[in-house]
Amino acid sequence: MTFANVATLGVLPGRRDELVAHLTRPSEELAAAGCLLYEVGVSDDDPDTVFVVELWTSAAAHQASLQLPAVRAAIAEARPLLSGVVGGHRFDVVGSPLRATT
Amino acid sequence: MTFANVATLGVLPGRRDELVAHLTRPSEELAAAGCLLYEVGVSDDDPDTVFVVELWTSAAAHQASLQLPAVRAAIAEARPLLSGVVGGHRFDVVGSPLRATT
Repeated sequence: MTFANVATLGVLPGRRDELVAHLTRPSEELAAAGCLLYEVGVSDDDPDTVFVVELWTSAAAHQASLQLPAVRAAIAEARPLLSGVVGGHRFDVVGSPLRATT
Repeated sequence: MTFANVATLGVLPGRRDELVAHLTRPSEELAAAGCLLYEVGVSDDDPDTVFVVELWTSAAAHQASLQLPAVRAAIAEARPLLSGVVGGHRFDVVGSPLRATT
């Protein structure tokens, strides 16, 4: 079942674009690990936050990805940029109006 | 610029699956209006919430979609199922590690 992870990552003032650069660095490992979609965004209304939406082939694939060396390295690089304010939610995808079945 | 809308919709107890059915009803109008992705989900951890992640060709396309007759009808049908607890955020997509450019 497709799994979604949505996160808001608070960043230290002025460091947002650095975090975006880390998160958007091309990675072949993510797709190989079952990542279907990984969109990174920003909002003028909230300049110290980076937004992430991820879709994975399963919750297990997402969980396993956190142990990939490239992902662990990316997390370690990103951590000094974070303010500690994090949010988000996780859910199982059950359908879409854009397709006939899930 | 791709625009993302992420929402959490609180539902009245026991009405979650009805809301899911409304939100996942196949719609050709959404794609025609610029909707690139529209995933609906649930979580065992939060049984009275429906999660939605949408990607649109632009913020303007998303805004305009709210005036489509089919979307207005769907909102009217869904409203009696909602608890009034809503959340979410909107952002501009600036990249993805799954592709070389946005």
